[in-house]
Amino acid sequence: MEKMKVGVIGATGMVGQNYIRLLQDHPWFEVSYLAASPRSAGKKYTEALAGRWQMEEEIPAAIRDLVVGDAGDVDSAKGKCQCVFSAVELDKQAVRELEDKYAAADIPVLSNNSAHRHTPDVPMLIPEINTSHVEMIPIQRKNRGWSKGLVVVKPNCSLQSYLTPVYALMQAGYPVERMILTTLQASSGAGYPGVPSMDLLDNVVPYIGGEEEKSEREPMKILGRIENDRFVNDNSLKITAHCNRVPVVNGHTACVSLEFGSKKPSLDEILAIWKAFKAEPQELDLPFAPKQPIIYREESNRPQPRKDREADKGMAVSVGRLRPCNVFDIRFVGLSHNTVRGAAGGGILNAELLKAKGFLG
Amino acid sequence: MEKMKVGVIGATGMVGQNYIRLLQDHPWFEVSYLAASPRSAGKKYTEALAGRWQMEEEIPAAIRDLVVGDAGDVDSAKGKCQCVFSAVELDKQAVRELEDKYAAADIPVLSNNSAHRHTPDVPMLIPEINTSHVEMIPIQRKNRGWSKGLVVVKPNCSLQSYLTPVYALMQAGYPVERMILTTLQASSGAGYPGVPSMDLLDNVVPYIGGEEEKSEREPMKILGRIENDRFVNDNSLKITAHCNRVPVVNGHTACVSLEFGSKKPSLDEILAIWKAFKAEPQELDLPFAPKQPIIYREESNRPQPRKDREADKGMAVSVGRLRPCNVFDIRFVGLSHNTVRGAAGGGILNAELLKAKGFLG
Amino acid sequence: MEKMKVGVIGATGMVGQNYIRLLQDHPWFEVSYLAASPRSAGKKYTEALAGRWQMEEEIPAAIRDLVVGDAGDVDSAKGKCQCVFSAVELDKQAVRELEDKYAAADIPVLSNNSAHRHTPDVPMLIPEINTSHVEMIPIQRKNRGWSKGLVVVKPNCSLQSYLTPVYALMQAGYPVERMILTTLQASSGAGYPGVPSMDLLDNVVPYIGGEEEKSEREPMKILGRIENDRFVNDNSLKITAHCNRVPVVNGHTACVSLEFGSKKPSLDEILAIWKAFKAEPQELDLPFAPKQPIIYREESNRPQPRKDREADKGMAVSVGRLRPCNVFDIRFVGLSHNTVRGAAGGGILNAELLKAKGFLG
Amino acid sequence: MEKMKVGVIGATGMVGQNYIRLLQDHPWFEVSYLAASPRSAGKKYTEALAGRWQMEEEIPAAIRDLVVGDAGDVDSAKGKCQCVFSAVELDKQAVRELEDKYAAADIPVLSNNSAHRHTPDVPMLIPEINTSHVEMIPIQRKNRGWSKGLVVVKPNCSLQSYLTPVYALMQAGYPVERMILTTLQASSGAGYPGVPSMDLLDNVVPYIGGEEEKSEREPMKILGRIENDRFVNDNSLKITAHCNRVPVVNGHTACVSLEFGSKKPSLDEILAIWKAFKAEPQELDLPFAPKQPIIYREESNRPQPRKDREADKGMAVSVGRLRPCNVFDIRFVGLSHNTVRGAAGGGILNAELLKAKGFLG
Repeated sequence: MEKMKVGVIGATGMVGQNYIRLLQDHPWFEVSYLAASPRSAGKKYTEALAGRWQMEEEIPAAIRDLVVGDAGDVDSAKGKCQCVFSAVELDKQAVRELEDKYAAADIPVLSNNSAHRHTPDVPMLIPEINTSHVEMIPIQRKNRGWSKGLVVVKPNCSLQSYLTPVYALMQAGYPVERMILTTLQASSGAGYPGVPSMDLLDNVVPYIGGEEEKSEREPMKILGRIENDRFVNDNSLKITAHCNRVPVVNGHTACVSLEFGSKKPSLDEILAIWKAFKAEPQELDLPFAPKQPIIYREESNRPQPRKDREADKGMAVSVGRLRPCNVFDIRFVGLSHNTVRGAAGGGILNAELLKAKGFLG
Repeated sequence: MEKMKVGVIGATGMVGQNYIRLLQDHPWFEVSYLAASPRSAGKKYTEALAGRWQMEEEIPAAIRDLVVGDAGDVDSAKGKCQCVFSAVELDKQAVRELEDKYAAADIPVLSNNSAHRHTPDVPMLIPEINTSHVEMIPIQRKNRGWSKGLVVVKPNCSLQSYLTPVYALMQAGYPVERMILTTLQASSGAGYPGVPSMDLLDNVVPYIGGEEEKSEREPMKILGRIENDRFVNDNSLKITAHCNRVPVVNGHTACVSLEFGSKKPSLDEILAIWKAFKAEPQELDLPFAPKQPIIYREESNRPQPRKDREADKGMAVSVGRLRPCNVFDIRFVGLSHNTVRGAAGGGILNAELLKAKGFLG
Repeated sequence: MEKMKVGVIGATGMVGQNYIRLLQDHPWFEVSYLAASPRSAGKKYTEALAGRWQMEEEIPAAIRDLVVGDAGDVDSAKGKCQCVFSAVELDKQAVRELEDKYAAADIPVLSNNSAHRHTPDVPMLIPEINTSHVEMIPIQRKNRGWSKGLVVVKPNCSLQSYLTPVYALMQAGYPVERMILTTLQASSGAGYPGVPSMDLLDNVVPYIGGEEEKSEREPMKILGRIENDRFVNDNSLKITAHCNRVPVVNGHTACVSLEFGSKKPSLDEILAIWKAFKAEPQELDLPFAPKQPIIYREESNRPQPRKDREADKGMAVSVGRLRPCNVFDIRFVGLSHNTVRGAAGGGILNAELLKAKGFLG
Repeated sequence: MEKMKVGVIGATGMVGQNYIRLLQDHPWFEVSYLAASPRSAGKKYTEALAGRWQMEEEIPAAIRDLVVGDAGDVDSAKGKCQCVFSAVELDKQAVRELEDKYAAADIPVLSNNSAHRHTPDVPMLIPEINTSHVEMIPIQRKNRGWSKGLVVVKPNCSLQSYLTPVYALMQAGYPVERMILTTLQASSGAGYPGVPSMDLLDNVVPYIGGEEEKSEREPMKILGRIENDRFVNDNSLKITAHCNRVPVVNGHTACVSLEFGSKKPSLDEILAIWKAFKAEPQELDLPFAPKQPIIYREESNRPQPRKDREADKGMAVSVGRLRPCNVFDIRFVGLSHNTVRGAAGGGILNAELLKAKGFLG
């Protein structure tokens, strides 16, 4: 099978670098186009980077000499790739306009940016949770007059350490009504240069701009449904998030307390639900789908970021410490790799899902 | 005024070292006696330490050559000090018996250990909250047949970053019914050698043995009352705690969500209550009492452990980020210095309170 | 080809765990036997570990239920493995006796321990440097009366970040006479629990017991020759090492100044020598041999432990910052992965070399 | 005695903040004037900071509301202060011109910037080493036509952890000819935001732009002499420095190997020299002069940054691990507080020296 050619726009930033790193040797996709700011355009990728490559792996050999295009110039992408991963960093309005331009040019957009997350006809996907939201794509195309283009987004990294385990319980017949959680988020979530070392040596920063709002709002859409050709939020789950930056390189940890509705599972039932949980990415055997989306750690002191973030190549959510909550019903700890599951890896899984369902190419 | 002579038992461990460090130049107390395990007994303090001094300050000159006694031999303390700070580390039953022996020998005991925290006639004091609990001392003495001896304990370090701010609201007429919180606790809380560096470099450990139980149970006694010569817990406040160890040297941070009863203060009222809060240690002008027990940080990203732990010599609680909670009523971040306010400094403040009230010497 | 069965003695410690981790899926070797202290003997490996598994990867499935033998009981290893990797931690005399017992029982020993490093008929191998030292094995066997047994050791981890690059220059005809270097060593080098977190948060420890002596003495044997059936040290290179522990998980960095003898290479010649350097492991295409033993990083601020330690699966040495030295001739920075190249990976490469040369099985 | 009024130019940066912090309660000086970039000019200091205050202490109350001047407008400083501490960050030529303008306006300048460090008539002072260099001031004034103005600089922070101990030996009659050293430098040396946390979590950066050159060149002037009204370097000491950034908040550590000339002290003599070392700041009893400029730590694993940086309020140099060097004569570890002794504290000590010698006011 010939690989599908894909582009990365915003290719010099840290999310773009992660896309390039993770797409190396991908069985379905091949990076054939890179774009970045006009300053980088026309240069070879290594020159455009100017020493900013932050990955622990080397720049893939096939990528080093690719000439970078101007991300704002959609024409230069045409014919070079069949879809793009968007890792651009611009103001929100500019991002929306740019991503729409690519879609209008028949280039599907898989975005990591938050700009389109609450656009009424743009699906925000976690493929283990809401693959049904791809049904919005034909509506989106009709709305916008796009034929082969589309825009799909992934949610913020912070909520991926716990939303799938919570969803697994809901989907098993145990609606969750209230959730209070605290995240301990890794430095890499802020990109590079990102958080100054003076803020994270012997220190914790109990604030991440916009992060709590995203953690509280995005699940409502993800858990929502399509009605009258629009997404309608699920407002039945109330969430409060306390978001902290901690001195960890990769891996967001979350401490979660949950209150169910009148139907409450036992701890054993929860464990059984988590261990048995599979969803469409597993059924479709997508390349980036973790074999087991939720891994329960039996040890009393796990999950831990350094030890568990790489579970199933960084795509699984690790949970542990399931126990009763004195105030709500249960509490647990969740963890995922913020730059893989929570960012580029999640975007790639979205692309795989769309391809498997015939929306790409 | 001549200073009161005090002893430190368990003097070679990290809490004992902190007592020695903090009591240097104390206006009321003078360390005149040290005791530790039989292995250390008979040696000069510096020899007994054998290189284990962990403080960033030097060993006080007056202490270096003190000959260490055997902590188990109460007679050797007699005549050498008028009270002792207990920082011993033994099994709980042994600690209780040892502390009782000191008290029976007319040597009041100010303990940092958890052994006696739930003994029905032993006060567990945070002097800004429950100085009235000293009224148990005459009852305790009668129960035990002690004349000048007594045992008073301080609570666990983890809860001191938020309990005073919560109490301030309760005492102002706004009962709190439910509290869900997550702590990000410093390495020093586990003593030395304590947590291995392999656990805290690029990592977080979402578990501290026994810590959540202490955080949930001890406030009930602290907020309780004396009835029929016994402490009766206040069960009106339900608490769930998630306790984590993070790569920070000193300073425990807590992310707290609170639900009030029917009477709910506005955010402005809360700020006013916190800023105005004073208690008996301030009225008595005790040497270790922070001028302002609760310091509200206006910055969006404070309190932070490295920047705020030393507030008022490590004895104040810093709070910040007061904002509405989506699930409960409000949320905030609290922080205190775990080895000062949460350990030796808190023990010294207890001693000052007892002395001011005539229970010592 | 059927895999050779190998044992790991000292299997529950961190070095032993690393052997198990790295030997998973090895093309030539298969772990078939584990041994540890009598306390662990008779238990399944996971039970013997009792939660002490420190690797970021899971325990290999084939290993989890292996019943652990008593390392001191050589008979229990017989027939179960064709050689052993020794990661035991006992006093030096006990290690020597134990390793000799395995060898006497026809079980070759590849040791990570320092006990036999200066035994006159025991080769201390870095396969890129002194494969000729395997010629001692027949002499060793004759000396000891062993038929198939043997003992081979690897050197300390600290010197592996610079000795191969230095050797490459010597072997190219540029003898080095003096070397002053400073290491910045990772926490994992001290095992688990190892260095307390209180020593490595916001701190550096400028001392590692015995490390400087090893760094200065071991190269003399490694660079030495066999004469009259004994190893004779090369004393022509004088070394001073300053060894520090820094807050890094894995990866030892070294800052090195070198003085050549009368023949001095240019910087360009040095780069050319390093880039071209290959040795017997590469020629033999051993599975753990790095394709390029010395990787030169052109960036001004590399090598760095987090970014370069995994180079060629942790088996390559990364160097950078080659520049003139004001006092000696040149200076550079070297880096290697201390638990892979510097420990278990180095031991495995030794075993591969011995197998390729017909000394095993 | 009325305090001398002093200004801080470049008051909003981290070095400026340190001057303000350290000058609080200074017995001789009182901060009466602040200046920064035109963007800050006209604002109160707290407003100009816009949340950038990085000190662990609060902004001094007397400083909070000071209206900030434009550092480029020397007239606005006139009459408001009798000298200025320069912590400006501009290109070197601009710094020199600006500092000269202040001096020309009769406002002595104590600079932290490197711009004037090699100007032939500008003294670069470490008051324990080269107070005689103040004799250049009358020459400087004559050269420039300044009457009360002057410019004096302090050297780079990196060399202050070892140069005083080395000088002590030279001055005791043991010339040092060669020195090879490696520094492990703290994050705060790079200011704020400075080094990204992604570079210092689980990592070391073996490169600091310009630092090695400064470490190797500046001592030659400091140890030099005045000849024909110009500074003449001492070229007898050859230095090579390897400079690294490590995950430490404050405190630069240096590992040093020294080769003496023909006259070589014993280790005991060196210890005696260091312990007895006093210089003019101690004789003059300057407020910021450490009582003992060189503190020798007897412990095998000291000095360490977190434990020793605050020695004598951050103004002493701590040394330890004196031992023979295999290649040169001796080696040792030195440590000083980079933002106190190495920056603002050193600048204040320079000002105290000049005042004591009648050059200020």
